Amino acid sequence: ALPDARLLPGQRLARGVARALMALDFVSLEEMIPAPGLRVDLMALGPKGELWVIECKSGRADYAADRKWQGYLDYCDRFFWAVDADFPTALLPEGTGLILADAYDAEIIRMGPETPLAGARRKALTLKFSRQAAGRLQALRDPRA
Amino acid sequence: ALPDARLLPGQRLARGVARALMALDFVSLEEMIPAPGLRVDLMALGPKGELWVIECKSGRADYAADRKWQGYLDYCDRFFWAVDADFPTALLPEGTGLILADAYDAEIIRMGPETPLAGARRKALTLKFSRQAAGRLQALRDPRA
Repeated sequence: ALPDARLLPGQRLARGVARALMALDFVSLEEMIPAPGLRVDLMALGPKGELWVIECKSGRADYAADRKWQGYLDYCDRFFWAVDADFPTALLPEGTGLILADAYDAEIIRMGPETPLAGARRKALTLKFSRQAAGRLQALRDPRA
Repeated sequence: ALPDARLLPGQRLARGVARALMALDFVSLEEMIPAPGLRVDLMALGPKGELWVIECKSGRADYAADRKWQGYLDYCDRFFWAVDADFPTALLPEGTGLILADAYDAEIIRMGPETPLAGARRKALTLKFSRQAAGRLQALRDPRA
């Protein structure tokens, strides 16, 4: 585990969000790749197979630089932004979820609207989530493989 | 990662099998729990969602003590035993797969017969695999959570 100081601001938010989602029985995978060319900050998987994408923005500039977030909507049942208490939340588009986070915890302020994945997309995405999570775990368990 | 000497004999086989399966583009999860009361030595997940169970037996006594393996058949598309070169393979039941392994590598000697999972079972099992893999990865990344 990285000491806090070595985490980038976005990673600190992601950690807090992941902890809070665990309390809702969602597991999370950081920097998950739902499709070639896309990489989401956090993909969370719920007890019934719900897939949520959470994009963590450390500030206004970080948010303004994001050109890809609308592409993520097709790869989740709900979409959220995670920001810290200083973030100007009025910037964020309507119809997206909002999570207030720090490095230690987080709170869902507004649920992302539900946009359920179609069956085939959900199946493929769950498989990718599985394979990326297990592949990373395997690399940690057996780094010499 | 554990140094070799700290792995139990069955864990050494599991590591060799996991490495060999990686070459077939299967990721693996050790001690996966497919259902309450069941725990398989290795569950492997293939690129098309194939689910294989591999039970690792360090010797005759280890094999003879196994009362649960037939229950695992309902939770995989193929079932294999993994044993080392000294194992008396004539003991193993017909109609099961065989992998010859050591701590470093493995070779599939006989494919387990294909017994495709039904859709609902596959879906539930893939979700469990995902959640167990991501949950363990998360515990390693953020042990203080």
